[in-house]
Amino acid sequence: MFSLTAEYALRAMACLALAPGRLVPTPNLAGQTKVPPNYLAKVLQLLAAADLITGRRGVGGGYKLARPAGEITLLEVIRAVTQVERIRACPLGLPTHGTNLCPLHRKVDEAAAAVIELYGRTTLADLLADPNRPRPLCEVPGAPTMSATLTVDGTAAKPAVRR
Amino acid sequence: MFSLTAEYALRAMACLALAPGRLVPTPNLAGQTKVPPNYLAKVLQLLAAADLITGRRGVGGGYKLARPAGEITLLEVIRAVTQVERIRACPLGLPTHGTNLCPLHRKVDEAAAAVIELYGRTTLADLLADPNRPRPLCEVPGAPTMSATLTVDGTAAKPAVRR
Repeated sequence: MFSLTAEYALRAMACLALAPGRLVPTPNLAGQTKVPPNYLAKVLQLLAAADLITGRRGVGGGYKLARPAGEITLLEVIRAVTQVERIRACPLGLPTHGTNLCPLHRKVDEAAAAVIELYGRTTLADLLADPNRPRPLCEVPGAPTMSATLTVDGTAAKPAVRR
Repeated sequence: MFSLTAEYALRAMACLALAPGRLVPTPNLAGQTKVPPNYLAKVLQLLAAADLITGRRGVGGGYKLARPAGEITLLEVIRAVTQVERIRACPLGLPTHGTNLCPLHRKVDEAAAAVIELYGRTTLADLLADPNRPRPLCEVPGAPTMSATLTVDGTAAKPAVRR
């Protein structure tokens, strides 16, 4: 629903949150997030420009979070790479509308507000805190592989037990 | 937040909902929606392909809604031009995740679900039904022009009384 860039940015940040304090080399980041390396490089530039990550070049280099995972919201990550804004005034610039939005733009604004609120109250640390769910980007050790195939009625096909 | 294409599609559909049963010529549509004509032509193609509008070429031609405004949701309009989907399985294709989403993708799915629910329960007719709000795309006749400028603290500047 959001841009692919936002999805990739979230993956990169989740990956770095899994390695607190350590510099993760870019090839490792690309491998674990499954983001094409050139695309990832651009995403990392944007995240660094937004002061969400810091990087070091050369041997032993890589990236790490610039602040603790509990202090970075998903909204900040998404805003570093794409535009997520409330609608404050008529996008058509109609003078008799101004900030008194018509029902269409009020609805679009309502959707933006809902998403902003949801992502704004979730930090990177929250993504790693649920013991009942798989960790982002990480295979579940020893788990049966869950089929990603859906049956024709939309339900998940039964898990294949492959260890 | 959504693509610009979705915003333009919503404007086009609102415009046609304002003229029920009549064919609106494409130049009129472009003028009222303030969508660049080439962009609008592509949007209209997608809306027609989704059977939301019907068109007729030539003199006296134009577009109109294919179904009553009360039967077309904003979600259908957006889905005609851009992808809006729940996340049904791990986007990384991790076999041990499958449909058991990690917290990151559960959150992204939650955002998609919220937006889908909101747009899915709003029809084009709903956009025209509120007597207390400006009609989409239309100047309010006789109203003072509302400043679209925000003051530095984010509140709206006072309306300029221009009639």
